[in-house]
Amino acid sequence: IIYQYSATLISNLCLQQNLSQNDLNIRTLISTGINIANAYYYDIIHHSVSVTLIYPFLAVNMGVVSRNWLYVKKFDGEPTDENFQLTEEELPALEDGEFLAQAEFLSVDPYMRPYMGRFPVGSLMIGGQVAKIVESKHAKFPVGAKVFGQFGWRTHTVCNPDKTQGDKPYLLPDFGTLPSSLALGILGMPGNTAYFGFLEICTPKEGETVVVSGAAGAVGSVVGQIAKLKGCQVIGIAGSDDKCQWLKTLGFDHAINYKTENVLEALKTAAPKGIDCYFDNVGGTITESVMRLMNLFGRISVCGTISNYNTGPTMVQDPQRDFVFKQLKMEGFIVSRWRDRWLEGILANLDWIKQGKLQYEETVTKGFDNMPKAFMDMLKGGNTGKAIVKVE
Amino acid sequence: IIYQYSATLISNLCLQQNLSQNDLNIRTLISTGINIANAYYYDIIHHSVSVTLIYPFLAVNMGVVSRNWLYVKKFDGEPTDENFQLTEEELPALEDGEFLAQAEFLSVDPYMRPYMGRFPVGSLMIGGQVAKIVESKHAKFPVGAKVFGQFGWRTHTVCNPDKTQGDKPYLLPDFGTLPSSLALGILGMPGNTAYFGFLEICTPKEGETVVVSGAAGAVGSVVGQIAKLKGCQVIGIAGSDDKCQWLKTLGFDHAINYKTENVLEALKTAAPKGIDCYFDNVGGTITESVMRLMNLFGRISVCGTISNYNTGPTMVQDPQRDFVFKQLKMEGFIVSRWRDRWLEGILANLDWIKQGKLQYEETVTKGFDNMPKAFMDMLKGGNTGKAIVKVE
Repeated sequence: IIYQYSATLISNLCLQQNLSQNDLNIRTLISTGINIANAYYYDIIHHSVSVTLIYPFLAVNMGVVSRNWLYVKKFDGEPTDENFQLTEEELPALEDGEFLAQAEFLSVDPYMRPYMGRFPVGSLMIGGQVAKIVESKHAKFPVGAKVFGQFGWRTHTVCNPDKTQGDKPYLLPDFGTLPSSLALGILGMPGNTAYFGFLEICTPKEGETVVVSGAAGAVGSVVGQIAKLKGCQVIGIAGSDDKCQWLKTLGFDHAINYKTENVLEALKTAAPKGIDCYFDNVGGTITESVMRLMNLFGRISVCGTISNYNTGPTMVQDPQRDFVFKQLKMEGFIVSRWRDRWLEGILANLDWIKQGKLQYEETVTKGFDNMPKAFMDMLKGGNTGKAIVKVE
Repeated sequence: IIYQYSATLISNLCLQQNLSQNDLNIRTLISTGINIANAYYYDIIHHSVSVTLIYPFLAVNMGVVSRNWLYVKKFDGEPTDENFQLTEEELPALEDGEFLAQAEFLSVDPYMRPYMGRFPVGSLMIGGQVAKIVESKHAKFPVGAKVFGQFGWRTHTVCNPDKTQGDKPYLLPDFGTLPSSLALGILGMPGNTAYFGFLEICTPKEGETVVVSGAAGAVGSVVGQIAKLKGCQVIGIAGSDDKCQWLKTLGFDHAINYKTENVLEALKTAAPKGIDCYFDNVGGTITESVMRLMNLFGRISVCGTISNYNTGPTMVQDPQRDFVFKQLKMEGFIVSRWRDRWLEGILANLDWIKQGKLQYEETVTKGFDNMPKAFMDMLKGGNTGKAIVKVE
């Protein structure tokens, strides 16, 4: 069944890339991890005759039926309903070492928009979820436990955690009275993205001025609060007055609505001493404006570029000159590089929440059927804090 | 006399910036260092009411006459003869702790083009020189010794090394049989720029692919050779077939003439495995092409942007998206950050030269009167290796 499934995908891929199947050097792997996809993607574009097919999860015929959202048409501009198709899949009986997980909350994140471009049409939509283990043949993943896994957009998953490559599924740490959905947000990937991506790359110092773009999102809202905890002056850039208002309640010193204000002028007023650290979630012209006000030895952490995920990169002023004369440092990252320190980030954020020093917001869409809608709304900036879907 | 001199400069500055002198908070310092200028420049642009006047050297009436090139008209586009004026200045008798130095070789470097924009009209042109001490009231700087100093474009200089801020003058290390002019190039600032800027920021590993732009210049030619010494595959980008030919004799694996070749296509051929390290001397569209081929976890050291010193930054494709997904790291630098390790770089390069592992070229213009010509030629890419002026 693996090979049957592969054949369809290979055909699609060959058609898209105008290749003969004989030109392809096929490798097949079973993976839960977007990182593996990432690594192999570079392989593909650099060698062009090597094709890797990524199966977020292997699932063959029997028993429980999972509902899956497939990626059936290449994204071009803003995603629409036509890019997605809901299908059903019978899952196999468990083998030793496997468990069956039932999704409770699923994540929709900006990265899915650019990442899916690397997968062939027909692939399962990628993504993390919080799921309850409903059947198990793995001693460390007992029935009733809650697990976070990169299972994709599906309601049920058969998983062998020991054979998973990339980001392995893990049992949720004890969140006390906090909801398990936070494992998709402030106590999961976005929270760790903020924690590591800001502290490790921006290395903020007390009294410095920090700017965060995409500040009302799942990551940006946490970055700004951590910057305040580190004694910085914090300016957030977001896309509505309501979001700006919320940022103020989180303790941001200034919030700029980029849809109604001149960002450069507003930054000059809000950051009279210039900008020492910039945490970039958006790229494009907003970033161009921030760059102009960076201070000597400024640090820029590049987390995402949501401004151009639907359109491709825009043109900006060549930044190199300021890099030289202001001796700027910029680094992009994918949070999985801190995989070995995963729990450290979660526990740090958990501790701050318990102390009342870190707040969060979730924008919850109800119903697995609404996954595409939640995803599309999030890309348009419809969410405040973390966008998630609750399976009903 | 200091204050008289200041008054003229202040007037000029006020005129240029349309300010009343009463608005200004004047600070005066005597400095040899471009770094101080740099630091204060940011002060000026960020506070706009604070003006710092930089005197590369204080010189008042008496005795020896120095010939000085002044910056008498703001650069606008390519420099022309009108930007410079040759003047004479009587130097004072030496006081205790001072020496009198007579220039033998002067440096013309790309950085002078953007840096002079920070100085008021009427300032001495900035720059380093190798000079012979012809009179001394400082025990550690005896008559006959050779000194490197940031004295500017002048034939004679009275200097108190202990009171110099920024980059202090230093006696040349023993170069053996090598010419003292190398203290302006491979055994001075450009050599150290290559040594530290490449090794510390690009952290090259054996087998990696390194691209150098401005590769036939004083810095780029050394970077490429050091990359070869570290076991890398090295591609240079330069502006003529002769330069490319020279790069091949230095051991570069590939050399691309950006004036006659499509840089992106040529890079794809020369770097089939992608690019791990990029040492950027030029910025602009060449850099845009290199960026597109960077590998995961690539490192970019930004040393200069000579492509736009005469024109201002061009527009390029927003690079942020590749920064995220390829997890790139980029850092700009000014070599003075390694001031405390200055001799380490010089001695390492000297050692490689003595072992025959590092080659250099100088493009020598004769005559102090030809300083502007040498500078303008260098900005147009007329030099191979280090551009210097020999005082006759």
